[in-house]
Amino acid sequence: MATKTKKKTKKQAIQEAAVRLFRDKGYSATSMRDLAQAVNLKASSLYNHISSKEEILKNICFENAHRFLEGMKKVEAMPGTPAEKVEALLRLHIRTATGDAASVMAFNDEWRHLTEPLFSEFTALRKDYEGRFLKILKSGMQSGQFQNLEPVVALHTIFSSIRWLYDWFQPGKELTASEVEENIINMLMEGLKKG
Amino acid sequence: MATKTKKKTKKQAIQEAAVRLFRDKGYSATSMRDLAQAVNLKASSLYNHISSKEEILKNICFENAHRFLEGMKKVEAMPGTPAEKVEALLRLHIRTATGDAASVMAFNDEWRHLTEPLFSEFTALRKDYEGRFLKILKSGMQSGQFQNLEPVVALHTIFSSIRWLYDWFQPGKELTASEVEENIINMLMEGLKKG
Repeated sequence: MATKTKKKTKKQAIQEAAVRLFRDKGYSATSMRDLAQAVNLKASSLYNHISSKEEILKNICFENAHRFLEGMKKVEAMPGTPAEKVEALLRLHIRTATGDAASVMAFNDEWRHLTEPLFSEFTALRKDYEGRFLKILKSGMQSGQFQNLEPVVALHTIFSSIRWLYDWFQPGKELTASEVEENIINMLMEGLKKG
Repeated sequence: MATKTKKKTKKQAIQEAAVRLFRDKGYSATSMRDLAQAVNLKASSLYNHISSKEEILKNICFENAHRFLEGMKKVEAMPGTPAEKVEALLRLHIRTATGDAASVMAFNDEWRHLTEPLFSEFTALRKDYEGRFLKILKSGMQSGQFQNLEPVVALHTIFSSIRWLYDWFQPGKELTASEVEENIINMLMEGLKKG
């Protein structure tokens, strides 16, 4: 039991180191050797904890996909207007970006390296999330709360607009996470709403 | 003279192939061997045309930096409100993204791989551009045309919001380039303006 706990912790450390390496060098350029070095293990010992680089990528991608789908489920179940729902989802995206940047960055940029059947399983989860987000956007346009935009353009512009947080944002350096959050919410929600 | 023209054309072909490789594999993972293969040259012949992978990255980064700075110069010189100026710059960003995606993507993502003194020269150009864009945003906030946002958050949200165009957009597939442009302009300009 103690061994299992220890292994789990080591696995977690490996995943965190991998996330940083993927961010700095990219998934393709990161080798198992780099990863072993980052966690002070011999490459041969690394294989006691993980079977492959792809196992780590899989964990990162599916953990994040499920985090966003859990958030979506809560938002769908809550009472409120489409604008309130979009705002809640935006806050989830922004907080995840400011709180766990490297992980979400790997999730955003590196999922293309998943092989089958993982690739198809992952893209299905992604499509599901996007479809449910689009549905909320469309209902806001139909009710006249949002301006009449191409829903898919609005969706991708929203997702994309916070990507700079991964590269740029260091909490508390110039602005706090909540200042950044309020500013982005103001700008994007005004952009969606009918003037 | 004929030789020079031919060399220039080959150089252009090499740069275009490099741009695609950088997009698909990333700069770090792209080797001179990959590049030679992509343009049907032996690695040894490739060196007749370019001295290094970094020479290509340098060309991509500085050509794009100057393209945006030229655009900025025109916008600064034109009469118009801050909103009109921001809109003109946004259109420049969107058109460059829909018209020359791979090149701008390399410029956006891979400039960090430049070594000194190129790195510092490039970041100075980038800082200059961002500073001039911020000045226009601030003047719109001071005049009350824009809502009172943290200028740096507005700037990065604008830049970031169109990054999905590089990954996703295929002109004419679902939407035309100009439909996408009008939708993004509507959303972001409404987001900036005071309601």
